[in-house]
Amino acid sequence: MKLAIIGVGLIGGSFAKALRAQGEVERIVGFDTCSEVLRQAIKRGVIDDQATSAAQAAPDADVIVVASPVGTMREVFHQIAGVIKPTAIVTDVGSVKGCVIDAARDTLGAAFARFVPGHPIAGSERSGVEHADAALLRERVFVSTPLPQTESQALHRVEELWRSVGCRVERMTPDEHDRVMASVSHLPHLLAFAFMAQIAGQIDAVRKFALAGPGFRDFTRIAGSNATMWSEICICNRKALGDELRAHRDLLADLALALDRGDREALRRVFLRAADARPQ
Amino acid sequence: MKLAIIGVGLIGGSFAKALRAQGEVERIVGFDTCSEVLRQAIKRGVIDDQATSAAQAAPDADVIVVASPVGTMREVFHQIAGVIKPTAIVTDVGSVKGCVIDAARDTLGAAFARFVPGHPIAGSERSGVEHADAALLRERVFVSTPLPQTESQALHRVEELWRSVGCRVERMTPDEHDRVMASVSHLPHLLAFAFMAQIAGQIDAVRKFALAGPGFRDFTRIAGSNATMWSEICICNRKALGDELRAHRDLLADLALALDRGDREALRRVFLRAADARPQ
Repeated sequence: MKLAIIGVGLIGGSFAKALRAQGEVERIVGFDTCSEVLRQAIKRGVIDDQATSAAQAAPDADVIVVASPVGTMREVFHQIAGVIKPTAIVTDVGSVKGCVIDAARDTLGAAFARFVPGHPIAGSERSGVEHADAALLRERVFVSTPLPQTESQALHRVEELWRSVGCRVERMTPDEHDRVMASVSHLPHLLAFAFMAQIAGQIDAVRKFALAGPGFRDFTRIAGSNATMWSEICICNRKALGDELRAHRDLLADLALALDRGDREALRRVFLRAADARPQ
Repeated sequence: MKLAIIGVGLIGGSFAKALRAQGEVERIVGFDTCSEVLRQAIKRGVIDDQATSAAQAAPDADVIVVASPVGTMREVFHQIAGVIKPTAIVTDVGSVKGCVIDAARDTLGAAFARFVPGHPIAGSERSGVEHADAALLRERVFVSTPLPQTESQALHRVEELWRSVGCRVERMTPDEHDRVMASVSHLPHLLAFAFMAQIAGQIDAVRKFALAGPGFRDFTRIAGSNATMWSEICICNRKALGDELRAHRDLLADLALALDRGDREALRRVFLRAADARPQ
């Protein structure tokens, strides 16, 4: 199998390394808008060949993995649509499925039937090919969100590839995926960014950071994630994320009222609900 | 030195173990409202003797460390005020200083001059004497918030004890301490509890937890903290915490507006401010 990776970052790079380790690929071509990333990817053996555009990377590939930021995928699909093999499978790793599927539907033409939208739930506050690691994908969930028109052969092939690198495959509708991710991934990232930005804007920020404990470091770890990538993800999933954020603001309004009233029991009820629910 | 620990939990227990390891104490007596805790503390060698009340633990002690939840400290001070030695030093480890100092001023009488309010910034989402560990306090900050009337000998003695177990001592006013902690400790705990409670209240909570990634686990770790203890801390520090929560809700309102408008740049500006500020 010949593989093309469009966007050789943490996830694209880790998937390439993991597939190679499984002996699944004969040749991997990569494209990234940053030429230094490609140089590193070649040097580290993540890819075999570098292309100068997505369109140049795609023609020989049996499977094209689009692993660039979600906001760039429409342009990538547009560029590769006319040049890929008639049998080529296109798949993506985007954290939002609705907007990516819309982009693919609008641009891929006949190849849309062999487009398999997916999302490996893996990652880290670190990004970039220098942190790519096959182990990152092991024992993770790959969410597959096929459409009624998705060819089952393409679907099974993509799911098989993710299984081969150690993922458990779970199928969902794109809507369901986007609602779940708004809740357990996109909202916490937005909240962690907001919390850190709040302190960063205060005149005694440096002193506060110096006095922060281990709980603070855990809570804010994801605020070290890539700001550009995450603002794109949030905008892509703005409907579902907006709903979750609204519910969160309502709950915070209740807690603010409890604080004003000195109502310890009201706080305690909410805190207990949280502490009881937290998975171990 | 004879030491009394009132409230033999994670912090009280860790301080007792650490002081003993330094050879600072000849005898440690402990009291806890839970008799099983005392049994464990004796069994693990954290304390030498158990008392049946705070008043019974205090009379022989040179230093009395009040390490019970902040909401209980007023009652503890009240109980020990009449029975301690005239030279005894009283200190506490509470996460809020203003309300604890008020309670001590109201109840300790003449001994208030030898009351040293303090807060070791250490801890974990785990609690209880079974997790007590001298290492928990090493390379942490002990915040000392002396008052104008605090006797300097008592102050130096308490600070020396915390230094001996590996803490760096930093002095602040109680107000300053409570504002800093509202920001870097109490608000993130309240937000993590609120976020977890929000998901826990949804019908697909179990599925969502199953699909949560490592970022979610970091972000919610502190929501596994003791709900009763944290609701007390939040109420004790409700003024400063309320101010921080108000600022946070204002920022979330801005982000919600940016989402509604699809304004990626507005999100990105806030996220970048956070990502740039995060201490490494």
